[in-house]
Amino acid sequence: MADGEIKVDNDPVFKGIDPIKYEGPDSDNPLAYRYYDKDQMVLGKRMEDHLRMAVCYWHTFCWDGFDIFGAGTTDRPWHAARNDRAAADAKMAAAFEFFTKLGLPYYCFHDVDVTEDSATPDELSNNLKRAADRLAAYQEATGVKLLWGTANLFSNPRFAAGGLTNPNPEVAACAVRQIRDCLEATNQLGGENYVLWGGREGYDTLLNTNLDRELNNFGRFLSMVVEHKHKIGFKGKILIEPKPHEPMYHQYDFDSATIHGFLQHFGLEKEVHVNIEPNHATLSGHSFAHEIATAVSLGIMGSIDINCGNYQNGWDTDQFNLDVRDITLALIELLPSGGLDTGGFNFDAKVRRQSSDLDDLFYAHVGGVDALARALLSAADIIEKGEIAKFKAARYAGWESSDLGKMMLSDGASLESIADKAAATGLNPSHTSGRQEMLENLVNRSLK
Amino acid sequence: MADGEIKVDNDPVFKGIDPIKYEGPDSDNPLAYRYYDKDQMVLGKRMEDHLRMAVCYWHTFCWDGFDIFGAGTTDRPWHAARNDRAAADAKMAAAFEFFTKLGLPYYCFHDVDVTEDSATPDELSNNLKRAADRLAAYQEATGVKLLWGTANLFSNPRFAAGGLTNPNPEVAACAVRQIRDCLEATNQLGGENYVLWGGREGYDTLLNTNLDRELNNFGRFLSMVVEHKHKIGFKGKILIEPKPHEPMYHQYDFDSATIHGFLQHFGLEKEVHVNIEPNHATLSGHSFAHEIATAVSLGIMGSIDINCGNYQNGWDTDQFNLDVRDITLALIELLPSGGLDTGGFNFDAKVRRQSSDLDDLFYAHVGGVDALARALLSAADIIEKGEIAKFKAARYAGWESSDLGKMMLSDGASLESIADKAAATGLNPSHTSGRQEMLENLVNRSLK
Amino acid sequence: MADGEIKVDNDPVFKGIDPIKYEGPDSDNPLAYRYYDKDQMVLGKRMEDHLRMAVCYWHTFCWDGFDIFGAGTTDRPWHAARNDRAAADAKMAAAFEFFTKLGLPYYCFHDVDVTEDSATPDELSNNLKRAADRLAAYQEATGVKLLWGTANLFSNPRFAAGGLTNPNPEVAACAVRQIRDCLEATNQLGGENYVLWGGREGYDTLLNTNLDRELNNFGRFLSMVVEHKHKIGFKGKILIEPKPHEPMYHQYDFDSATIHGFLQHFGLEKEVHVNIEPNHATLSGHSFAHEIATAVSLGIMGSIDINCGNYQNGWDTDQFNLDVRDITLALIELLPSGGLDTGGFNFDAKVRRQSSDLDDLFYAHVGGVDALARALLSAADIIEKGEIAKFKAARYAGWESSDLGKMMLSDGASLESIADKAAATGLNPSHTSGRQEMLENLVNRSLK
Amino acid sequence: MADGEIKVDNDPVFKGIDPIKYEGPDSDNPLAYRYYDKDQMVLGKRMEDHLRMAVCYWHTFCWDGFDIFGAGTTDRPWHAARNDRAAADAKMAAAFEFFTKLGLPYYCFHDVDVTEDSATPDELSNNLKRAADRLAAYQEATGVKLLWGTANLFSNPRFAAGGLTNPNPEVAACAVRQIRDCLEATNQLGGENYVLWGGREGYDTLLNTNLDRELNNFGRFLSMVVEHKHKIGFKGKILIEPKPHEPMYHQYDFDSATIHGFLQHFGLEKEVHVNIEPNHATLSGHSFAHEIATAVSLGIMGSIDINCGNYQNGWDTDQFNLDVRDITLALIELLPSGGLDTGGFNFDAKVRRQSSDLDDLFYAHVGGVDALARALLSAADIIEKGEIAKFKAARYAGWESSDLGKMMLSDGASLESIADKAAATGLNPSHTSGRQEMLENLVNRSLK
Ligand SMILES: [Co+2]
Ligand SMILES: [Co+2]
Ligand SMILES: [Co+2]
Ligand SMILES: [Co+2]
Ligand SMILES: [Co+2]
Ligand SMILES: [Co+2]
Ligand SMILES: [Co+2]
Ligand SMILES: [Co+2]
Repeated sequence: MADGEIKVDNDPVFKGIDPIKYEGPDSDNPLAYRYYDKDQMVLGKRMEDHLRMAVCYWHTFCWDGFDIFGAGTTDRPWHAARNDRAAADAKMAAAFEFFTKLGLPYYCFHDVDVTEDSATPDELSNNLKRAADRLAAYQEATGVKLLWGTANLFSNPRFAAGGLTNPNPEVAACAVRQIRDCLEATNQLGGENYVLWGGREGYDTLLNTNLDRELNNFGRFLSMVVEHKHKIGFKGKILIEPKPHEPMYHQYDFDSATIHGFLQHFGLEKEVHVNIEPNHATLSGHSFAHEIATAVSLGIMGSIDINCGNYQNGWDTDQFNLDVRDITLALIELLPSGGLDTGGFNFDAKVRRQSSDLDDLFYAHVGGVDALARALLSAADIIEKGEIAKFKAARYAGWESSDLGKMMLSDGASLESIADKAAATGLNPSHTSGRQEMLENLVNRSLK
Repeated sequence: MADGEIKVDNDPVFKGIDPIKYEGPDSDNPLAYRYYDKDQMVLGKRMEDHLRMAVCYWHTFCWDGFDIFGAGTTDRPWHAARNDRAAADAKMAAAFEFFTKLGLPYYCFHDVDVTEDSATPDELSNNLKRAADRLAAYQEATGVKLLWGTANLFSNPRFAAGGLTNPNPEVAACAVRQIRDCLEATNQLGGENYVLWGGREGYDTLLNTNLDRELNNFGRFLSMVVEHKHKIGFKGKILIEPKPHEPMYHQYDFDSATIHGFLQHFGLEKEVHVNIEPNHATLSGHSFAHEIATAVSLGIMGSIDINCGNYQNGWDTDQFNLDVRDITLALIELLPSGGLDTGGFNFDAKVRRQSSDLDDLFYAHVGGVDALARALLSAADIIEKGEIAKFKAARYAGWESSDLGKMMLSDGASLESIADKAAATGLNPSHTSGRQEMLENLVNRSLK
Repeated sequence: MADGEIKVDNDPVFKGIDPIKYEGPDSDNPLAYRYYDKDQMVLGKRMEDHLRMAVCYWHTFCWDGFDIFGAGTTDRPWHAARNDRAAADAKMAAAFEFFTKLGLPYYCFHDVDVTEDSATPDELSNNLKRAADRLAAYQEATGVKLLWGTANLFSNPRFAAGGLTNPNPEVAACAVRQIRDCLEATNQLGGENYVLWGGREGYDTLLNTNLDRELNNFGRFLSMVVEHKHKIGFKGKILIEPKPHEPMYHQYDFDSATIHGFLQHFGLEKEVHVNIEPNHATLSGHSFAHEIATAVSLGIMGSIDINCGNYQNGWDTDQFNLDVRDITLALIELLPSGGLDTGGFNFDAKVRRQSSDLDDLFYAHVGGVDALARALLSAADIIEKGEIAKFKAARYAGWESSDLGKMMLSDGASLESIADKAAATGLNPSHTSGRQEMLENLVNRSLK
Repeated sequence: MADGEIKVDNDPVFKGIDPIKYEGPDSDNPLAYRYYDKDQMVLGKRMEDHLRMAVCYWHTFCWDGFDIFGAGTTDRPWHAARNDRAAADAKMAAAFEFFTKLGLPYYCFHDVDVTEDSATPDELSNNLKRAADRLAAYQEATGVKLLWGTANLFSNPRFAAGGLTNPNPEVAACAVRQIRDCLEATNQLGGENYVLWGGREGYDTLLNTNLDRELNNFGRFLSMVVEHKHKIGFKGKILIEPKPHEPMYHQYDFDSATIHGFLQHFGLEKEVHVNIEPNHATLSGHSFAHEIATAVSLGIMGSIDINCGNYQNGWDTDQFNLDVRDITLALIELLPSGGLDTGGFNFDAKVRRQSSDLDDLFYAHVGGVDALARALLSAADIIEKGEIAKFKAARYAGWESSDLGKMMLSDGASLESIADKAAATGLNPSHTSGRQEMLENLVNRSLK
């Protein structure tokens, strides 16, 4: 096979595993979908088009099971002793076999995920070009599409103090170069978004940090990314992924509200959106639904890295999210706004380190896919029944229907005119029940 | 004594306690200052003028020691069976005796702190007028000044679902009225700031919450506050106090960065500043120094509610902050920016529920005052030695001194021009030590 | 009506609310059970006998909606201006009407919940006697039974530094007296357990705490409780409720494992069991399932205070638990051990402060009851399918089936003999997949 | 140089760094001790003998700066491409040069820290024998002593599901063998303790875990360790290091109280002690002082891994602890009990990943050593002044001095006799101030 050629379905890695099919809720087949029926219409749209699911390249194909306390555990035939060209090619073949067998429409990658180890920035640049050609061929052969690409600005030791926010201009310039290359590769591959995750854009201690310099550089270079996107005609969205800390003590992309503030400061709030991850929401003290609702309200909702942490440990465990109720609560914030546009649900999740078999990759994704589908069905039921929306509308009706509400929102209103009105009419209102438990019951009633 | 008259130093409540004096670090007198010597010059300014300390009215004079599990424990002669006019007057006399004996220049209050219980908004409005006259008389008599006033929009049951963000326009109108009245009272009293703390501006569940409506109303009414401030000629700053949650599940004023985003959205980022509280920083996952550094960098630094929580329990314990190192780390972020302008250090702190004696109020404040003074001396030493600032400057010097840095910050620079330059020069930089431990040692070296 | 007489169903408080009935999963009636069908057989036992549900007296009948930032919000006709005898009697009538309309078999109380305010310990003692007679009459009239009673050793200011662990012997003696009285009242009422929750048994600061004295006193007095239980012939279990902190900074009953250690230290591990609360599990860094599994494994499983917190805020919110998956995960740890013996599921949960209507009490309990029933059905399905248990058995089979496993567990085995055997046989085993995701999928498959 | 030979001070790695000396608080030399003057007498003992400080081998010599998001950053000449024999020998030479230059009396190690990579358990066993001989020679040559050794039962992939608690007897047997070998090596080297840290003794999910089996095996094998210690005449203490989670979701050695419960269950509470780490205390929701006070009270205090985390991030950052106040609070719990016996203060701390230079290792340790010494001086001052101890004694005096207290602690006392006495004497005590703030001020007053 010549260097540029790819192999598809020839000598499969996942032997004995057939494409995953929908078999309905009563199926006991652990490798079937019980809820994900991609062509089923939900709220007027195919399930597949609602969820736009993607497999991530890094956790599933690049991670060998190591953690901070121990070496890799996983049985992955494509993990050669080192990540040379042959290993990278084998990995890519396995990845597209996996995507295809799962039957999901998208994948996502970092530049270093799809390339062999590169000793220098020049090598990485060249290796990415070669990898992009191969990815294009695989996409063509399998129909799998690219949800988003991203540059890894955190693994190379040079990025220990950040990429775009590094104190050293040389390092920042390398970061810029990687982004330029990866944005162009993403464009070439028809990627529907380009993501920046501030892997180390933050600080470990304020004692050695010039906050103004770092934030200004971050804004400046982000503006350049947006400018370049337009220049090359990239149609996708530019996304930032909130995460409050880890690996850094503090990260500038703390949460959606913080990012919105930052974007406004640099006039980018119409150009950049967020890629929300439930586990990162947890780390920043928010629910998944809160982050979605906030991004929707601020007009910066982009895409979702679906996963979860657990609430007992304070780091990013990136587990497969099987919490149907929690996802449902997020979906009823998302769907009424029109749902995902160019975004999708990317499984930024990894099997536990003890789940060392190849099969475990399938179990994990099948469970994750089904939890999303089940949540979609549940959220659709809530929305179709409409009782929560109706309650909410009635609760705020005074702002549209009462004279006082209208006056308070009218053009001439002032602190004084409202206060005077309150005094003149002797306003002395009492509290009205918020009915939280009744509403929570309605959610449970619709849970599939 | 006629209704409008006040008493000063006549029949003192804190019998046997003399005005607190500075006696130096070697003093063993538990009711003397060991570090706070108000006229001592530090970095070219009197200690008193650096720290601008204030006693808060609520924790120290209104709280009776109750908590969610039990009734009041404290021995406070001004706590009559109910908070009627006589009780409120006795409380005010005790408060000014306390302020005076501590020798601190400022105090802070909520409208309901300084008034008797009011059955209606009308009564509150009238009671506040009377109280303001009395406060003015006490200020005149004692020389104690008002750091800030604020309206309590959270204790009355009507505010269960928020004040300015209440679903019911009638409740919001009452909130507006209280703010108008209290802002005017603050102005009358020469207050140097006016604070809004979103006591219940947030939500308990998204299921009954219209986020857009609440945020828009919040922005709208806040704009009216700013407008009214200018109209009445109030010279002080309008401040918002960040707090992520408690009592609400989520509060809109989550942290400084969130507030800055919100302010920009409504064009208020030049008009409104933040009142930072260490315990609230803790609840939002930040260090005290982080919140100060962020507010300074974003240009919204206002004032400080000095206190602390503990790191084991997740609610707002509002303890007196004796952590000199932690305060020092915040001060070295604050002082180089010019320090507090109209702001101050308000002791928004309460004695533990078990500290039930009158004396405990003095012990607590004396310890808190001294911790601030000691931190000021420590921070001044760090700043005067200048080693941390020098290290930091050198770390970022490439942005001003290297050709690459200058090019990256120059007008014509683009993603492409920087990436091309990195490629053309074969940039392949490595990491440089951030020297965190060495810098942390320098802090400890300067701790008094 | 003479003092000792009670009223039942005469002038109901919850007007217009009929007894709650089972209507099946398809019902849209918000005041019907959709899963709780008390006579339905599950794993060979009636649902009611599995779950043994109880309503708590305090949150539902004594709390007026106050929180640390504001006054009561709730509309409760039995809350007179003060809790005098008439108010206490009205409250009791309402409580039994509520229990009966819900159709749950049990309730739980603190001594101060069922009595009017008592100015002295003597009054409390007398008031409790009267209240117990009335409770007995209500139990007789309605068929509702007592799951457990407990003495409130935290609300009276005298208990600010603890009850049984108070530094002052006089306070500890008062605590002993209250326990004695309440244990005897519980016995009189046929209570199936007696609970001690260390409301303030802990410390706020080590600086004023003699840990040895407090722990030894705690053990000593707990032994006396056990002794007295046997003396008076009380047949129920003595339970301790773990909670790591709040209101105290640290509480001695931190979690189940800590309590087990404490019980062993005083030779009480056969005599005392635990009353586990999910929200307290959360506060101590554990999952609900963990606390159940630990208590079962240590042989101290007693009863459950069913509720939940949220994972964003760090205090005890005592919300109604609608997380069916989370409860199911706990039930599959509990049921195989034989389930609840004398214990039950007590709704130690309160409506949100904004849920101020009488109806909200019903919505909340109906939702909570149904979540438990749905979790029971889900857990039963997992247990009946048996796949998880089978996987687990196979994973540990080596300890019973292999020569090595048997040798390691045999009587003569030593560090040396095992190490020598490992060396002699050149043992060099590798890891086997733990299949976490596959098992998690099995749970989701059984969720109703 | 023949294989068994060692080199000392011959071709130093830390060139240009002289032995660290005490220069007093006024020194500005960043590589001098400002507080640690080892021969200074404090509370009747030399500083060195109080603190018994040790350098840890793993963080300082084995870790290359990698984290979960990126590769190693550190400049360490002994880190060859792989950890072969030459690299391991170079590392050992560097380690003893470092120990000696710091002038600290002790070090600590894991078996895999001091050996080259071993492909099999047999190789590890042999490599450890060789390494122990070399360590013995270094100890002899330098006078540095071994505080404790430990076996690494978490890095090899075979231990993914635990060591002693592994579901597979073969893996547990390998764990036993490693412990046997390492305990004997520790004995050979005159180690003063042997530590077991349950690196992966816990579970990731209850779904695949047999809690009874794992806990019973853990107890059983721990008993064998104790038995073997006595058999070989090892004089040191056996220690367990509490940690609540990380890497596992839950770890059995959660905290000191949990370990005490476990030890009692297996009759080991006199044989095994704890090795407390502040960062692990943080993770389990405790203060450092709490863990020390608990271990002292329960009689299981052993040794200390001194470090700290930060309170914002929820994982084990193992930072150098410069918080003098926090260490002081722990020392005033430790010193009155007699202080460390065979234990010491082991710097289980690592420089930040950005602190990549060799010099940073010195800065970090110098700062850590000085913080301990400064805390020792502070704690000694508190103890010598005696005011806190005196307050505490008075607070509990009623138990020894009052008739009621004596009666309650006397042999015949019962729930009934105490309750009757309380009733008969009409006890109605009130609360007495706990004076927390006054006591906290006393701590600050003594801080150096
Ligand atoms: Co992600
Ligand atoms: Co993540
Ligand atoms: Co405040
Ligand atoms: Co606060
Ligand atoms: Co409870
Ligand atoms: Co609770
Ligand atoms: Co350690
Ligand atoms: Co650690």
